[in-house]
Amino acid sequence: MRHLLDTRTLTREAAVRILDTAEEMADTQHREVRKLPALRGKTVVNLFYEDSTRTRISFEAAAKRLSADVINFSAKGSSVSKGESLKDTAQTLQAIGADGVVIRHPASGAPDRLARSGWIDAGVLNAGDGTHEHPTQALLDAFTMRRRIFGAQASRGRDLDGVSVVIVGDLAHSRVARSNLWLLTALGARVAFVGPETLQPYGAREWPATVRHSLDEALREDAPDVVMLLRIQSERMHAAYFPNEREYARNWGLDDARLAALPERTIIMHPGPMNRGLEISSAAADSERSTVLEQVANGVSVRMAALYLLLSGERGDPRDRLPGEAQPSRSTGKRTEQA
Amino acid sequence: MRHLLDTRTLTREAAVRILDTAEEMADTQHREVRKLPALRGKTVVNLFYEDSTRTRISFEAAAKRLSADVINFSAKGSSVSKGESLKDTAQTLQAIGADGVVIRHPASGAPDRLARSGWIDAGVLNAGDGTHEHPTQALLDAFTMRRRIFGAQASRGRDLDGVSVVIVGDLAHSRVARSNLWLLTALGARVAFVGPETLQPYGAREWPATVRHSLDEALREDAPDVVMLLRIQSERMHAAYFPNEREYARNWGLDDARLAALPERTIIMHPGPMNRGLEISSAAADSERSTVLEQVANGVSVRMAALYLLLSGERGDPRDRLPGEAQPSRSTGKRTEQA
Amino acid sequence: MRHLLDTRTLTREAAVRILDTAEEMADTQHREVRKLPALRGKTVVNLFYEDSTRTRISFEAAAKRLSADVINFSAKGSSVSKGESLKDTAQTLQAIGADGVVIRHPASGAPDRLARSGWIDAGVLNAGDGTHEHPTQALLDAFTMRRRIFGAQASRGRDLDGVSVVIVGDLAHSRVARSNLWLLTALGARVAFVGPETLQPYGAREWPATVRHSLDEALREDAPDVVMLLRIQSERMHAAYFPNEREYARNWGLDDARLAALPERTIIMHPGPMNRGLEISSAAADSERSTVLEQVANGVSVRMAALYLLLSGERGDPRDRLPGEAQPSRSTGKRTEQA
Repeated sequence: MRHLLDTRTLTREAAVRILDTAEEMADTQHREVRKLPALRGKTVVNLFYEDSTRTRISFEAAAKRLSADVINFSAKGSSVSKGESLKDTAQTLQAIGADGVVIRHPASGAPDRLARSGWIDAGVLNAGDGTHEHPTQALLDAFTMRRRIFGAQASRGRDLDGVSVVIVGDLAHSRVARSNLWLLTALGARVAFVGPETLQPYGAREWPATVRHSLDEALREDAPDVVMLLRIQSERMHAAYFPNEREYARNWGLDDARLAALPERTIIMHPGPMNRGLEISSAAADSERSTVLEQVANGVSVRMAALYLLLSGERGDPRDRLPGEAQPSRSTGKRTEQA
Repeated sequence: MRHLLDTRTLTREAAVRILDTAEEMADTQHREVRKLPALRGKTVVNLFYEDSTRTRISFEAAAKRLSADVINFSAKGSSVSKGESLKDTAQTLQAIGADGVVIRHPASGAPDRLARSGWIDAGVLNAGDGTHEHPTQALLDAFTMRRRIFGAQASRGRDLDGVSVVIVGDLAHSRVARSNLWLLTALGARVAFVGPETLQPYGAREWPATVRHSLDEALREDAPDVVMLLRIQSERMHAAYFPNEREYARNWGLDDARLAALPERTIIMHPGPMNRGLEISSAAADSERSTVLEQVANGVSVRMAALYLLLSGERGDPRDRLPGEAQPSRSTGKRTEQA
Repeated sequence: MRHLLDTRTLTREAAVRILDTAEEMADTQHREVRKLPALRGKTVVNLFYEDSTRTRISFEAAAKRLSADVINFSAKGSSVSKGESLKDTAQTLQAIGADGVVIRHPASGAPDRLARSGWIDAGVLNAGDGTHEHPTQALLDAFTMRRRIFGAQASRGRDLDGVSVVIVGDLAHSRVARSNLWLLTALGARVAFVGPETLQPYGAREWPATVRHSLDEALREDAPDVVMLLRIQSERMHAAYFPNEREYARNWGLDDARLAALPERTIIMHPGPMNRGLEISSAAADSERSTVLEQVANGVSVRMAALYLLLSGERGDPRDRLPGEAQPSRSTGKRTEQA
């Protein structure tokens, strides 16, 4: 694996390999000294064009536990504001010898462009791009489901065949929903999307998921093993297409009544931070079924696994290149003998 | 010791133990390689809800000299601005495996809440909360007094019994004054507070300190071994309750005339950065009696000591819990076997 | 060498020593583990009063590859905005035990002041001050020229005797131009400056360089081995003294026609980020002659060399002091025995 750009192109085999590696990483975190030497001498750059402290510190903790050097690069106040293009930034990172670039970008497709451009040799990890994907979030969600359903001991090698997952929220704008859809489908789970009709993404009816507008119907019909609530972005709450908050909570919130009616095995997931009282009640958020904190903790293990699989060992095996991916110019090593 | 939240509850014994450990830390800083392996594999998060570069880099230098990994988390531009509560942030830090959280917060009591909540296992170090406390500042001040009075060699094991300290400034808003009051009293020193009547904290007359409004009277009556000037916050200077700057300097500033009249043994302290010409004259700031730079340097040793005492070895001994402190839910290790 | 403040006072011998050390650093970057232990236990502070992500991460990567601890100190949101002077900041850095201070400052001469003041013991590296100098940029430029002209193998020990360099741009405001002028002259190169008459620095006619206003004339008369285009700062583009963009590109831009007319051996340099279509055409920027990416890569090697030469071994040899440099007060070690 050279890059982690999306879950849409991840095979079942590749996904299980990441999850199994994350189990190994999770095991090392119970040791006396939690640091592994695997990425010593490697440089990981956190290239964040959007604020996301939670995701950034999760990747930062993951990279440091693998002994990598981490350089944080917030696009605010950077030469980006002086008009520098993604290309110029990428070439700078190539030139300083970045081995891995964790990129968060408001434009869908930016990580893909970085990886295929030939601007850099570094492994590219998508930490969320526009409304496109957020693959490590989906991987930590799948990891959390696998652990809850099978237990940590019995998880390795397993997929989510036959698991029923109901995802509720603003599907039109959610990269978390998209990344989960592809990954869960690859792992054999059945996915149902539930949300207001105005928040359905264009084209969703062609996706490998049931689409519903009633949460109560979904809970009744889909017998979910997992109910995943998406975060409602406050900046969208007062848009014309958005139901008002009271209406949203009543129709699509996991409130106490719906919580009480869930089958005993059903777990409750949320990528955080939660809007308590809106998409999830406090009782649901704090119940034993809730995996919210496990998700965050598992995020470090999953990101350690992704960084390890991408950056350890030799990079640049041409058989690993993406279709259409260019060869970076190794300007560093260029030694023109003109004398 | 599990947390360092205030000096009010520090016993003489605990305070002397921190100061003595700081002496050991100071010694190691003269070695060829100044790094100690004590906190290798530990993660320290600097959680700053207020800007304070000086305090942040002091803690950062201290943690790195103990080989800890440091993650800086400035609340500006974080999900705090997306409405995330202290609880959610704390749980994120718990989930990524923070061993220590250094918190600076504008609300008095926030570090205490973090420590007692059961949200995290991490050791909490108060780096300044509202108008409440700033315990490492008081500890570095006491460390500096002890070294100046007894010398580094003869300091260990000693307290400040009988030492006379005059603290001058805006006592109503100063957490430095409060932390010094409790610590100095525990160590046996006598404290006098001096400041304009409008800047006296409510309830100060019940504190174990003499309260005066005339600096000249204090210098005459209290025969101070130490005169500590507090920093006047510029945002308060034009408030209605604040004397104008000229009046402040004339009545409460350590000017050249008052400097000349000090007994030879008296040292001059200031937490920095100084407003030269306002609370302190340049001659006083730069004189041999001034400990301003020693205070900053000693800050690193004292913070190394606090981090070391809180984070080395095993954490979570239930006998160490604070009264009323809840048990964090160890969601990371939860392994539900449902298969 | 105690500090790296400018290139104006660098001798040929000192410059070649830095470049040769940078060659050694570049070699180590091809190893399996790229980290060297040379600066373990040393603390490098990046003190940036101006944003410059590219320069900051280059120094940060360089320091971390030498195993130093790095503390980033952006003057935005620091106590600088509370009115703290450079002196107080410097004393704080001294007190926390900084071994090296990398300073970027909008005021010409600030690094020099820091180094000569006696406020700190740390080695000071100028990372760009006002319109004065940017010495590591000039060193990486010279390193790049030497490698391109002689090849990496044959570079060591050599200077740039007889090499012809044409520097094009806004010379009045360019610290890069100034640093290159002094360094290239010391290394034996011939320098010609080209730019609009309104962008000529005052006093330039006394400098050891040919000054021209026509790029075509310079390319014809100076037979350059190197054409270096300076970045046009967008904030100056609409100033009254600035030609409009179309006029600038036509008269002083390295466009495709001028590119085609260059002798085969001529290389094209730019400190980045480039304004494509203004001072340089895309064909020129991306041609084989362009060294833009090598310059960035070489920047890490040159900065490793500078940090290594300044910070390894014992500091504070009084024979190394600058003329007029004061002795820092070692307040850390002060042990007054009054007991």
